[in-house]
Amino acid sequence: MLKSEDLDRVFHALSDASRRAMVERLVRGPASVSTLAEPHAMTLSAVVQHLAVLESAGIVESQKVGRVRTFQLVPGALEPAGGWIGGQRLPAERRLDRLGAHLDADG
Amino acid sequence: MLKSEDLDRVFHALSDASRRAMVERLVRGPASVSTLAEPHAMTLSAVVQHLAVLESAGIVESQKVGRVRTFQLVPGALEPAGGWIGGQRLPAERRLDRLGAHLDADG
Repeated sequence: MLKSEDLDRVFHALSDASRRAMVERLVRGPASVSTLAEPHAMTLSAVVQHLAVLESAGIVESQKVGRVRTFQLVPGALEPAGGWIGGQRLPAERRLDRLGAHLDADG
Repeated sequence: MLKSEDLDRVFHALSDASRRAMVERLVRGPASVSTLAEPHAMTLSAVVQHLAVLESAGIVESQKVGRVRTFQLVPGALEPAGGWIGGQRLPAERRLDRLGAHLDADG
């Protein structure tokens, strides 16, 4: 079961633009720390810290082969956060959804 | 246009279970500070601070009538955050989505 602290950590990890950019990069495939660092004007040590935040939130995982540590996204790791957001719809928005589904079914 | 700092603030606001509970309550309709405070074992002042974080992220807005301040959700405020999460799908997940759509179209 997903604990509330897990969601805390995921949302916290996503609250930084650099970390979101690293996730966007990893969607395209696994990458080393130095590849992930390239677009960012920050020290490698700062990049490693951001990756540690993403890893402790369960969003990324890493493997070390020789001297190179490679990061990749954990499949489905963002789903509980996306699901929580998707659940917070106002009654009027839900009605619009149902209307849309109704029109789709007729079309 | 949505600025990256806006997303930072929305994800930060959602990184706390008490604030998420307040959002869940407000999905059911507008509420006063004291109503929002009821389920929480915290001071009114702490509740007001949480609501200020949600308000500065643009997730809730408030109106004061007489002595009572009422909070409500800002419609669509969570959509950019939900959209960002929805965009971070691995290639394998995208293929599954397309397969699902294909099967739906055939069914």
